[in-house]
Amino acid sequence: MTAAPASAPLTYDQTGVNYELIDPLKVAAQRAAAQTGAHMAGHGFSEVAASRGESAYVVDVGPMYLASIVECLGTKALLADEMARLTGKSYYDGIAQDTIAMAVNDLITVGATPLVVQAYWAAGGSDWFGDAQRSQALVAGWKRACDICKVAWGGGETPALAGVVADGRVDLAASCTGIISPKERLSVGDRLGAGDAIVLLASSGIHANGVSLARKLAERLPQGYLTDIGNGQTFGEALLAPTVLYSPVTEALAAQGINPHYCANITGHGWRKLLRHPKPLTYRIAQVPPVSPVLAFMQKECQLDDHEAYGTLNMGAGFALFVAAKDAARVVEVAQGLGIPALVAGSVEEGPKQVLIEPIQVVYGADELQLR
Amino acid sequence: MTAAPASAPLTYDQTGVNYELIDPLKVAAQRAAAQTGAHMAGHGFSEVAASRGESAYVVDVGPMYLASIVECLGTKALLADEMARLTGKSYYDGIAQDTIAMAVNDLITVGATPLVVQAYWAAGGSDWFGDAQRSQALVAGWKRACDICKVAWGGGETPALAGVVADGRVDLAASCTGIISPKERLSVGDRLGAGDAIVLLASSGIHANGVSLARKLAERLPQGYLTDIGNGQTFGEALLAPTVLYSPVTEALAAQGINPHYCANITGHGWRKLLRHPKPLTYRIAQVPPVSPVLAFMQKECQLDDHEAYGTLNMGAGFALFVAAKDAARVVEVAQGLGIPALVAGSVEEGPKQVLIEPIQVVYGADELQLR
Repeated sequence: MTAAPASAPLTYDQTGVNYELIDPLKVAAQRAAAQTGAHMAGHGFSEVAASRGESAYVVDVGPMYLASIVECLGTKALLADEMARLTGKSYYDGIAQDTIAMAVNDLITVGATPLVVQAYWAAGGSDWFGDAQRSQALVAGWKRACDICKVAWGGGETPALAGVVADGRVDLAASCTGIISPKERLSVGDRLGAGDAIVLLASSGIHANGVSLARKLAERLPQGYLTDIGNGQTFGEALLAPTVLYSPVTEALAAQGINPHYCANITGHGWRKLLRHPKPLTYRIAQVPPVSPVLAFMQKECQLDDHEAYGTLNMGAGFALFVAAKDAARVVEVAQGLGIPALVAGSVEEGPKQVLIEPIQVVYGADELQLR
Repeated sequence: MTAAPASAPLTYDQTGVNYELIDPLKVAAQRAAAQTGAHMAGHGFSEVAASRGESAYVVDVGPMYLASIVECLGTKALLADEMARLTGKSYYDGIAQDTIAMAVNDLITVGATPLVVQAYWAAGGSDWFGDAQRSQALVAGWKRACDICKVAWGGGETPALAGVVADGRVDLAASCTGIISPKERLSVGDRLGAGDAIVLLASSGIHANGVSLARKLAERLPQGYLTDIGNGQTFGEALLAPTVLYSPVTEALAAQGINPHYCANITGHGWRKLLRHPKPLTYRIAQVPPVSPVLAFMQKECQLDDHEAYGTLNMGAGFALFVAAKDAARVVEVAQGLGIPALVAGSVEEGPKQVLIEPIQVVYGADELQLR
């Protein structure tokens, strides 16, 4: 692939991830995995079949549900490495939070209270761990994110995998285990329906999705990551704003007796994730949140139209809660009380499966998100 | 590091993993992690403090304990890749089992029933997934290992991480979540004591530890992985024997009312792992199991004395169960009934913390295993 001239649009398709190669394995894995749910019966338990295809897998163990997940950071650490080279600072405290957020924000979608996080930090060689500033930032950031989410950091793996992980790099992932208790908190979409309000929680920036696109863009900016995005911040610094951790919101809601009918973590595929649940419903968005400066900058510089931008990036909304209309205002209040801007953005209606984002006249149809 | 001449001994220290660089981060992470256990109180739960430093982390959630873990395969996939190049076969079905074994065999040490496994398959680029033979082997092997362990394959991640994972490679890991129920099954060592019998379960070969040493050895063998190890098998084929999954044994024991007092998964550090529990006890081994041909070959070719060999490799014993003396014979019977050779190898005694392997006159003192 040759570099696109700076005047041409830059889309996610150009970032080098070829889903046509990955998808057959993904489908085969999903089919094989689905067959293993039957093993739970031998233990006197059962899987929550509706959690297949959701962001976390759920098993009914009697008095409570058990939810678990493993999630990777992706390539955001490459961006931190490049910024460290340019500025001499370490950004791994934020990178740690990003990694935990990938796991925790997915786990809570099913109504789970995250309890334990395990760290997976696989380096390209022992040398990686020798950078004390970076190592300490990673540990401190990981600890702080656990504190924010009130999870126990159970342990983890810190292998040196020369030849497997690229030289000088680290592959970061987190697993998270939680419980859904009381069982009424389970939210796999059976209560999702027409009349529900859609509450969007603010993102802090790009979070950890769309990073490949950002890296491609940096390559063609004359000043790269040091480009001022228009508010005095460099592109690199703005990109490295850590992902918001949303579990304090879902826990505070539970404490007030509010159980979302469904949740969607807005990551890859941007707002198309609002289509996540298989039910045929229309999601009408009447209000969009402010777009953070770094996302507005990316949209402009990559020349993405709104359909492409909102279908790829979070555009200011990091997490969607589908709640009973009567609870919507209180959900916003709870989130804002925790310092996370939120708004009642729209509602769920009977109708064909689609997202209608009215303020920008963007529509995503059922065929624009294939996750199962 | 220059290659050692073929006549010189080859030890683990020469494989390029420098623990002096990794350990400070590990210690800092363990300290920070330990502070987060207090968060469980806010949920009405508590951590099992004695599980800190054990192979899996345990939380008391009331009616049961929750155990969780994330484990990586290490570098064994590099060996599979090289053998695939030499023979045209795919070894990823076995590699999948190895990866799950790393997680499951650790999780069961605390008395847990493994319930859910999540797959972490991070490739160096989308192309990796395009090799259909390899992908199908990975999926099939993963599924079969889940079937053997009666765990549900909950899902996972299959990211393409160009620039993070080495080109053409895959970073494989598994997370595993289980429960300890009834709670009497918890085995974090409080019941371990003098008079207990030590039952060793057979390994299938190298499992997934000592792989770096094996790779170094292959480099200096004139025929490399295709060297006949003396029984008609090539070195590479023998190394790729998949790790034994031991959870059927611990589950069968539980079904018979036998709860081990303690367990040690014999991985890195070989038989020094028998010293895992902090209690000051002497582990006297009167009988050693047969050494599998590939490990005997490695010991000879690397010129390892018994102290080095048993302190690095599993030497025929993949898992140790510390059980009440009266149960020992039945434990052996149960394991053998499941096709896993086992023997009552020795016993636990009052005395200084050490392992005495009498048949080969090897002693490991307390200072030869530092895990906490």
